[in-house]
Amino acid sequence: MARIVMKFGGTSVADLDRIRNVAGRVARQVAQGDQVAVVVSAMAGVTNTLVGWCQALSPLHDAREYDAVVATGEQVTSGLLAIALQTLGIEARSWAGWQIPVHTDGAHGAARIHAIEGEKLIQHMQAGQVPIMAGFQGLGPDGRITTLGRGGSDTSAVALAAALHADRCDIYTDVDGVYTTDPRIVPRARRLDRIAYEEMLELASVGAKVLQTRSVELAMKERVRVRVLSSFADEAQAGTAGTLLVDEDEIVEKEIVTGIAYSRDEAKVTVRHVPDRPGVAAAVFGPLSAANVNVDMIVQNVSADGSTDMTFTVGRADLPRTIALLQGAAASIGYSELLTDAEVTKISVVGVGMRSHAGIANTMFKTLADKSINIQVISTSEIKVSVLVAQEYTELAVRALHTAYGLDG
Amino acid sequence: MARIVMKFGGTSVADLDRIRNVAGRVARQVAQGDQVAVVVSAMAGVTNTLVGWCQALSPLHDAREYDAVVATGEQVTSGLLAIALQTLGIEARSWAGWQIPVHTDGAHGAARIHAIEGEKLIQHMQAGQVPIMAGFQGLGPDGRITTLGRGGSDTSAVALAAALHADRCDIYTDVDGVYTTDPRIVPRARRLDRIAYEEMLELASVGAKVLQTRSVELAMKERVRVRVLSSFADEAQAGTAGTLLVDEDEIVEKEIVTGIAYSRDEAKVTVRHVPDRPGVAAAVFGPLSAANVNVDMIVQNVSADGSTDMTFTVGRADLPRTIALLQGAAASIGYSELLTDAEVTKISVVGVGMRSHAGIANTMFKTLADKSINIQVISTSEIKVSVLVAQEYTELAVRALHTAYGLDG
Repeated sequence: MARIVMKFGGTSVADLDRIRNVAGRVARQVAQGDQVAVVVSAMAGVTNTLVGWCQALSPLHDAREYDAVVATGEQVTSGLLAIALQTLGIEARSWAGWQIPVHTDGAHGAARIHAIEGEKLIQHMQAGQVPIMAGFQGLGPDGRITTLGRGGSDTSAVALAAALHADRCDIYTDVDGVYTTDPRIVPRARRLDRIAYEEMLELASVGAKVLQTRSVELAMKERVRVRVLSSFADEAQAGTAGTLLVDEDEIVEKEIVTGIAYSRDEAKVTVRHVPDRPGVAAAVFGPLSAANVNVDMIVQNVSADGSTDMTFTVGRADLPRTIALLQGAAASIGYSELLTDAEVTKISVVGVGMRSHAGIANTMFKTLADKSINIQVISTSEIKVSVLVAQEYTELAVRALHTAYGLDG
Repeated sequence: MARIVMKFGGTSVADLDRIRNVAGRVARQVAQGDQVAVVVSAMAGVTNTLVGWCQALSPLHDAREYDAVVATGEQVTSGLLAIALQTLGIEARSWAGWQIPVHTDGAHGAARIHAIEGEKLIQHMQAGQVPIMAGFQGLGPDGRITTLGRGGSDTSAVALAAALHADRCDIYTDVDGVYTTDPRIVPRARRLDRIAYEEMLELASVGAKVLQTRSVELAMKERVRVRVLSSFADEAQAGTAGTLLVDEDEIVEKEIVTGIAYSRDEAKVTVRHVPDRPGVAAAVFGPLSAANVNVDMIVQNVSADGSTDMTFTVGRADLPRTIALLQGAAASIGYSELLTDAEVTKISVVGVGMRSHAGIANTMFKTLADKSINIQVISTSEIKVSVLVAQEYTELAVRALHTAYGLDG
């Protein structure tokens, strides 16, 4: 007997037939003797419709009312799945965020979960009931509905698993796990059986959008074993399917490099000929930070003639704002020229094995050099090496690195 | 300064444009210096879609889950209207039934309101805020969402008006008031400026479906002044438009007959040659009552040969069940024959003035006789005379009676 949280995303509950399929899958889990709780997203498309209505009425709509409107999508799915489960003879009950309650902070539209009161649900589960929690939502300190931001149902599921002391949190999605890289670029990419939380965080934040980043952070903090698997795949190998997110210590045979990630959502900014003196970095990045522009990779060349070039990346969507902010601060920074390039890709090799291995970065540089790919910017962390290259080399670079690190299946 | 509850039905909030129109109407009421609270239905069609999903998953769906699903429609409208009002500079805030809360009994799918906690909303209104309550819903004793049954938002509005000690409850709908009869049959029908609660109850229950019957009962019990008016009509005469439901005492010049109602939703049943002895009525109606078949008009002819004929009406939808029940009880009743006729119409003349006037019924009988319309069944109450006629005479009878009682405009 295990206690399992099963989470189903929007495409898994897109219509009544799929909701019936999900009910069947939950029923079979229950038939195995497990205690099961379910977390559901809104039916695919519903959230977009509701968000669109709020936007159409006012681009600057009140986030509290947006939350009241948008949270209904998950409530509908939870009720419908309860009905579908009851027709299979399973005692099921829907729970909106405010009913449990899922306590969040007051940041409407992007709230964070503080605590979930799990005791009541545990009692229901022990009495044979399957609770179905509407994901993506909670109750703010003002007594009003909050939502967690797009993709927040993943975080709802992990938080519920922590509150219920669940043995596992199974996230059913439209991919069947986490791969060594994007299979659309590298057909020989392999599905990973296990991945460390830290690796998943790096892969997620650099573009492998399988799980909401915050859900992985929460899983790592609360040590929740999360499994990512497909809601459409064959159920025969259900116990072993998908990718399991675990603590680094649980991975016995550590690969040196676990995966290759890439992100095309970057833009490069170079501020030329800034004076090479203390405080200049603050003059460049202060205005960006104040405007909540997230700066990622930063390099500063060695000074030549008392001035230096500073290069960094920002999210591509933030590029126009970044240019405007730097032009506004031109006098205080004192640069000669502002160069930008949105046609770049950030490519990262990720693996907890790097901690104990030298030469990982060098393999990357050599592999790219062999393909005549110029590296524009480099940044490293304990378990990641990232480079910025011209966007046209994306596929070539990812494939070459996948082979170089022995990841081809 | 008055305190007004404004209620808008599904067609009044059918899309974003209409929600904007409603916001404009509310804003103009606020601009008059009134304290305003709003009650909204789901956008037209939404409730039907949600109900359809529940039905498709299970015809015998759990009413608690049905309520969780269906109540979302009103929640969406309340949030959208709050956003629309905020864009007009009005401080507005949506309230789901569980937030206020609107306490109901536990009869999921057809709950009755026990109490609405109005103090918090009154404070918000006094501070200049417009509360927008999601209609049709409340919170049951089990801590779960309840709904009030179709048309329940009317009852929500009247109950809120009572809880807020409002001066008036304005029900905006797709008709501009209550008429002396159906204008589609009698073009010269007049809109009534005022109507007594009791009259409205009789008119509503015999087919003039302007308001949910329960909302009228509640208005009468709580002495809430309800005004029915169109959300599409010109606003110039807003103060005087529509029909005001008031206490009988407030109607100074009482018409003898206020209106002519008709209902085609009846079916006639005749049980022939039942033994004329004590207990036979109980033998006939006992099984129907036990099966929740609502019996309306009942007549029993004088006994001729120790046996009698018993005729009554039921809702047409209940006719097949009624036949089956009476056939099942044939032995205990001991009748010779069962005759049924679904091609009938019940026509009623209604007016509180009848209490003090004789000859009302006779005018009805004479008028119908003059048109050679045969009366099949008669029943009377203090403020109503109803007759059953063949359905083909419906329009002829309604027009003749409208003229005979001096109601033509």
